[in-house]
Amino acid sequence: MTKNTKVNAAILIIGNEILSGRTQDTNTSTLANWLNSIGVKVNEVRVIPDIEKKIVDTLKELKKENNYVFTTGGIGPTHDDITAASVSKAFGLKYEIHKEAYKILEAYYKPGEFNEGRQKMVWMPENAELILNPTSGAPGFSVENVFCLPGVPSILKSMLGGLTNSIVGGEPILSLTISLRTVESEIADSLTKVQNDNQDVEIGSYPFFQAGKLGVSIVIRSENQTKIDSCNSQILKFVNEKNIEVVDR
Amino acid sequence: MTKNTKVNAAILIIGNEILSGRTQDTNTSTLANWLNSIGVKVNEVRVIPDIEKKIVDTLKELKKENNYVFTTGGIGPTHDDITAASVSKAFGLKYEIHKEAYKILEAYYKPGEFNEGRQKMVWMPENAELILNPTSGAPGFSVENVFCLPGVPSILKSMLGGLTNSIVGGEPILSLTISLRTVESEIADSLTKVQNDNQDVEIGSYPFFQAGKLGVSIVIRSENQTKIDSCNSQILKFVNEKNIEVVDR
Repeated sequence: MTKNTKVNAAILIIGNEILSGRTQDTNTSTLANWLNSIGVKVNEVRVIPDIEKKIVDTLKELKKENNYVFTTGGIGPTHDDITAASVSKAFGLKYEIHKEAYKILEAYYKPGEFNEGRQKMVWMPENAELILNPTSGAPGFSVENVFCLPGVPSILKSMLGGLTNSIVGGEPILSLTISLRTVESEIADSLTKVQNDNQDVEIGSYPFFQAGKLGVSIVIRSENQTKIDSCNSQILKFVNEKNIEVVDR
Repeated sequence: MTKNTKVNAAILIIGNEILSGRTQDTNTSTLANWLNSIGVKVNEVRVIPDIEKKIVDTLKELKKENNYVFTTGGIGPTHDDITAASVSKAFGLKYEIHKEAYKILEAYYKPGEFNEGRQKMVWMPENAELILNPTSGAPGFSVENVFCLPGVPSILKSMLGGLTNSIVGGEPILSLTISLRTVESEIADSLTKVQNDNQDVEIGSYPFFQAGKLGVSIVIRSENQTKIDSCNSQILKFVNEKNIEVVDR
């Protein structure tokens, strides 16, 4: 893959606790920020329950449509941890004890503590590559373009550093944010003109409330800094003409 | 729909700002908590970019597979707000000025302020039902089983109260959480037995770190309080036998 290729990914959050509203997902933004920083654009995120057929079907679809798929959740020792078995099915691979993972966990736990529950965590698709876990021992794994990470946010975060070299990204996606003391409808027409004149740049407009005041953040995204700078000038020109205040945010 | 029917929904978050990692989505947990409270189970969440074809294709799939679909984002006045046009395409409906929405916004703004940018917000699929917006005037809308809400979290929240009567839920989904000072692998086998003996109850196990200590929350979910109480007793029995501390969380 050369550096000018566009590289994309899907994130698959596996877990009933997000769908019930009990847990606020933060892994999406952690993964999205990390992927953007290494030149991988996130095409799509899905959150699905701990149901094997749903995981298998979704994986089959996403691994075909994206350069990479990152899953979170479902790789612990309990009955609702079915990600490794589901990935095995999605790839038509045997689900078996991973010898290297077994050795890692055998060494990690005190003698006698590597019980049946914990041994479940070394069952993986055959020939899976391990993703090392510097926080709590139990590794994640990858098969082809699918990378399986745990659901606990602090553990997931600690594993990304070791994973960065396994991912081949494209050009990093650069961005610039301009925050304005205005409302969207005051700038909509002018902003549409800038977008139409710069179709290969992604321009987003996001209203916000802060300290009781309304504002709009305009986000310009591209792999090309010159194009971002040019859009920035065009936006600041109409902002100036309309006497709109630029604010920090 | 009778009260004993299972009712489910998908949530579709439309917006590049979530996929870039710039914005932390909170609308999923707001919607999921609200839906669960009125007896609607969330089957799936998807986050997709502001791309018309992707929105249309995803809507066609989700509206067929779920009793309800709730979208957030993309109904403002700027060029990247394409939800209403996309919903029109997904249903094969005309995209046109909604007369009632026009009257609401004409009355909401001061004379002369209802400009072209703001008028974009009254373009909707023909015969759409309005979802009133007590915070900032511009209404959301629904077509058949698809409900379109704004992306700004505080505005979205303020619109749910008025929407509750439009949604016909099933039995409310009840839940009970037991938090333990233990690790998952200590309880995995016993918990699997409880799950196997109570297959129509959803039992989840979620490790956590709090104040530097490890713990596990077990969440029992069902429409039937008696079944929840029975699982609770079975879990507390093995927790007691294993001398595991129950903690608040």
